[in-house]
Amino acid sequence: MNLEQIVKNNLAKTKEGRVANYIPALGKVEPNQLGIAIYDLKENDIKQVGDSQVRFAIESISKIITFLYAVKQLGMDYVTQRVGARQTGFPFNSILNLEIEGKHHPLNPFVNAGAIEVTSLLKAVNNMQPFEQLIRFAREICHDSQITLSTEIFESEERTGDMDRSLAYYLKAKKMLKADVPTSLKVYFKQCSMMVTAEDLANLGAVLANDGIKPWDNERLISSEAATYTKSLMMTTGLYNESGTYSAIIGIPTKSGVGGGLMSAATGKYGIGIFSPPLDDAGNSIAGLSALNELGRELKVDLFRY
Amino acid sequence: MNLEQIVKNNLAKTKEGRVANYIPALGKVEPNQLGIAIYDLKENDIKQVGDSQVRFAIESISKIITFLYAVKQLGMDYVTQRVGARQTGFPFNSILNLEIEGKHHPLNPFVNAGAIEVTSLLKAVNNMQPFEQLIRFAREICHDSQITLSTEIFESEERTGDMDRSLAYYLKAKKMLKADVPTSLKVYFKQCSMMVTAEDLANLGAVLANDGIKPWDNERLISSEAATYTKSLMMTTGLYNESGTYSAIIGIPTKSGVGGGLMSAATGKYGIGIFSPPLDDAGNSIAGLSALNELGRELKVDLFRY
Amino acid sequence: MNLEQIVKNNLAKTKEGRVANYIPALGKVEPNQLGIAIYDLKENDIKQVGDSQVRFAIESISKIITFLYAVKQLGMDYVTQRVGARQTGFPFNSILNLEIEGKHHPLNPFVNAGAIEVTSLLKAVNNMQPFEQLIRFAREICHDSQITLSTEIFESEERTGDMDRSLAYYLKAKKMLKADVPTSLKVYFKQCSMMVTAEDLANLGAVLANDGIKPWDNERLISSEAATYTKSLMMTTGLYNESGTYSAIIGIPTKSGVGGGLMSAATGKYGIGIFSPPLDDAGNSIAGLSALNELGRELKVDLFRY
Amino acid sequence: MNLEQIVKNNLAKTKEGRVANYIPALGKVEPNQLGIAIYDLKENDIKQVGDSQVRFAIESISKIITFLYAVKQLGMDYVTQRVGARQTGFPFNSILNLEIEGKHHPLNPFVNAGAIEVTSLLKAVNNMQPFEQLIRFAREICHDSQITLSTEIFESEERTGDMDRSLAYYLKAKKMLKADVPTSLKVYFKQCSMMVTAEDLANLGAVLANDGIKPWDNERLISSEAATYTKSLMMTTGLYNESGTYSAIIGIPTKSGVGGGLMSAATGKYGIGIFSPPLDDAGNSIAGLSALNELGRELKVDLFRY
Repeated sequence: MNLEQIVKNNLAKTKEGRVANYIPALGKVEPNQLGIAIYDLKENDIKQVGDSQVRFAIESISKIITFLYAVKQLGMDYVTQRVGARQTGFPFNSILNLEIEGKHHPLNPFVNAGAIEVTSLLKAVNNMQPFEQLIRFAREICHDSQITLSTEIFESEERTGDMDRSLAYYLKAKKMLKADVPTSLKVYFKQCSMMVTAEDLANLGAVLANDGIKPWDNERLISSEAATYTKSLMMTTGLYNESGTYSAIIGIPTKSGVGGGLMSAATGKYGIGIFSPPLDDAGNSIAGLSALNELGRELKVDLFRY
Repeated sequence: MNLEQIVKNNLAKTKEGRVANYIPALGKVEPNQLGIAIYDLKENDIKQVGDSQVRFAIESISKIITFLYAVKQLGMDYVTQRVGARQTGFPFNSILNLEIEGKHHPLNPFVNAGAIEVTSLLKAVNNMQPFEQLIRFAREICHDSQITLSTEIFESEERTGDMDRSLAYYLKAKKMLKADVPTSLKVYFKQCSMMVTAEDLANLGAVLANDGIKPWDNERLISSEAATYTKSLMMTTGLYNESGTYSAIIGIPTKSGVGGGLMSAATGKYGIGIFSPPLDDAGNSIAGLSALNELGRELKVDLFRY
Repeated sequence: MNLEQIVKNNLAKTKEGRVANYIPALGKVEPNQLGIAIYDLKENDIKQVGDSQVRFAIESISKIITFLYAVKQLGMDYVTQRVGARQTGFPFNSILNLEIEGKHHPLNPFVNAGAIEVTSLLKAVNNMQPFEQLIRFAREICHDSQITLSTEIFESEERTGDMDRSLAYYLKAKKMLKADVPTSLKVYFKQCSMMVTAEDLANLGAVLANDGIKPWDNERLISSEAATYTKSLMMTTGLYNESGTYSAIIGIPTKSGVGGGLMSAATGKYGIGIFSPPLDDAGNSIAGLSALNELGRELKVDLFRY
Repeated sequence: MNLEQIVKNNLAKTKEGRVANYIPALGKVEPNQLGIAIYDLKENDIKQVGDSQVRFAIESISKIITFLYAVKQLGMDYVTQRVGARQTGFPFNSILNLEIEGKHHPLNPFVNAGAIEVTSLLKAVNNMQPFEQLIRFAREICHDSQITLSTEIFESEERTGDMDRSLAYYLKAKKMLKADVPTSLKVYFKQCSMMVTAEDLANLGAVLANDGIKPWDNERLISSEAATYTKSLMMTTGLYNESGTYSAIIGIPTKSGVGGGLMSAATGKYGIGIFSPPLDDAGNSIAGLSALNELGRELKVDLFRY
């Protein structure tokens, strides 16, 4: 496998789509970037090419980290009784399913309503506030002590996060949200504003692919059950409301973020992190998905392919 | 693995839920049944226990057969340009997504609107009408020359199929449907009324698991691409709008039918057919899914489990 | 009041909007037409100008005639238990409210679902089929024995009426429709295809304005209650989902049809019929509403104006 | 007309329905109350019986006051370009229409989204904050200098107003809201918490019925156009999503509030205020509407009745 070639083949795709502009700080990112990192579990080694060391906002991929952390702290049953595993059929910030179906919990943890719900479950522990806990956990699961909060992104999120406020108050009004709205959203916006690299995402993917055990030190960080459940959710709802489409084409459990990141987990084999900012209409990295598709075929990790 | 034990463990679950009663002919089925058949690709052998030879209406599992046949006849591109691979977030007979999003094609081939759309693509070939083609294909892919149409089920479907008529005319009004409505629905109702056994479904699953090649005679029946794509769809939308939930718990590409059937495909390993009539609210066999969960854990075929 | 002047003032508005083109036969109508007829109850006389004698398809204004006839035959309670008086918030051919709210009857008789429902309530009487009864009633309430069915419009409606079929089968599936779908729709399409003049509509409006008594022969045709109820419905839902908007601007109970007709009833004062084919996006005659607005101000018949 | 008799006839209806309990402070109101006040424009006199002097929270009837005040300050065009006059088909606190139709303004000023929008248009004038302006205007149009804010109701609204926050942030996210959310909602919750009597509402109705001129001092307070437009809105959307139903039965422009108030305006004739706390499912006073129906028939003020 020639990673350099895959970057070369897909770099032109960064001309397509648009960098996320719903928050100003994201809109300033240089579009013409593509970085790939692959953690190979058998060789216990990571390979990376292109812009794999560029830091970018983790955005929705943080929903994975928060979900895993919530499950670790509160247990699978507690969390999954408060947020489902169903697809919504609508964009990530829609309220339609909740209102039309009158459901008593958000449909899944990867739409904004569900992610805010999960965030609201977290409590201070030993005087450590939820976000402090989350960023520590992020550093551990991404094997990167340099992950920090981008104050600029966070402030931009806060300034423009009115749709998330609308969702959060809806959850509050329906008695679903466990913490108050400003507290929940502050943590939520902060978790979206953690700055990561493609390498970090490859490490995160590697833990999921390795049954919850960090391959670099062979210590279990999350339960096997949590890793399994999360990879399924990545497959069915990880790529916004195009999840089904990409599952059929690529077939690798993957979560995207509007910062341009993609994180994939091929069980027993690879963790993959990709970064390329320009997005399609659903909010997924165009060049990133194209590279992932090519990579997946070379690595033979489509779960549905013989 | 002790199949008898799994049947025994789950037979009591047939007391839960209700046999489909939306069409009278289905409502008459004896609820207290559970049959399992497993086609083992490595041993090229099939094992079966319980009510695995009882015939029942294939119902929604026929959507797989029709989709595969349409792809075989018309090509992947032609079919996937006319029906998507996205989840709807709503019950199988809902029009909400189509009308709210104004989409120009049904979201996926496993909701009724999408299945009717796919059926409408079929044309007479060499004077053979679409349903005649379909039932021949069903007999071949299920390796069962005894598959016949239940006139009773078909007439019951026709008598009570007004919601499907509503969906079909909606598709027609929006210029999506390729054939006229009565013709499309006649084929659709007939395909739902084919009588199969759990063994048949295990055979069908085995072809999908075996990359499109019939394991019993080593001949390719469908393309590798079609098998791959279909298994992904089974994972993301195969169990109505609880697909995500069961993907997270069981993790095996599976399609259900309201006749009580379940058909699963574990790539390279097994085709599985299960039959048990009582259904949950979403329309899936309760004892069947419970048995599948137990079976999947023994066979270690959860795609997301290490 | 100078009716000629009102026609002159508003004729240029026929350049705006578009003649209904959803059915081919309507699309062939000459757009540059405007006719007005006013039945003055005090003078017991009708005045008319412009294209007031041109025949056009009554379309949705027939929903008034069918509703009144159903109430006459079956009683107010029977009819209003089967169709409501609520606004839907959506276009006339939408299914969204029914499906989202799970209501057990169509929201009102002036959206297509409600009108089809009302039509389905009618039964043969003395060997006279429902449409024969309806056209007789139309001739009587419009005081025009020349009202006939346009076979061309009817056939065009039948050929293109798939959305109405979708609605009707939805009603059937939900056990609301009282007759079978083809029968109900045949009557429905026929009632839409009756050819009327602006004068006919002025007469119809005059009966409603005159408490249900035909002013030309002083005989009661419909109950006072039916006339009252119908005029309220015209105000709240008579102009598709712009009813509220025009109620606020014009304030006269009015029903429109996509054939370009408008029928208004000013209680105790006037029946008004207007004809001008080009429509706005909601399906209402543009020049017609503009003329009605001007006319209403001169006649001082805005119900909300001092 | 015997007002005492009407109170007597309808008092038993206070046993039906339930006092609003969505905010605790409203839930404490004594249910067994019914008060009626009628301002007769011809006699320039007000009659009242029963609990017509009991103070209660104005709630949604304040939407009338705020709309009229906004029109007075900012002009009809400015306000009606930012909020429509269409019915929504859904409960007053639903977001469905806005999200499904993608409209760029709330559909009307009497659903919560529209009322919050109108409130957001108000600006400080001469150092007088919006709510101070509003309560002054309320005192003037209701001819009651004793109208005050109930701090208890206001605090209860603030504590429980999360659905309104959700709506307001939705409007903000879609760039519709003109002020910031906390400011807009503070005014909105305060306007809902003004304490009025049935007599106050009769006076308010009398101004609307008298073309915008206060009948007690013959001074114009609002424009004729504003009075006309508002009475139409009361007819088409004044009684939540049962507006059409009651328009057909009662036919008097009326606005309800969940505090149990009803305010009606019969142009040129009467202003009517009614108070009775227990509500139907749509949020309208049950005994109040029953009394209004009886009263309307005696006063002959159904706009659609001959």
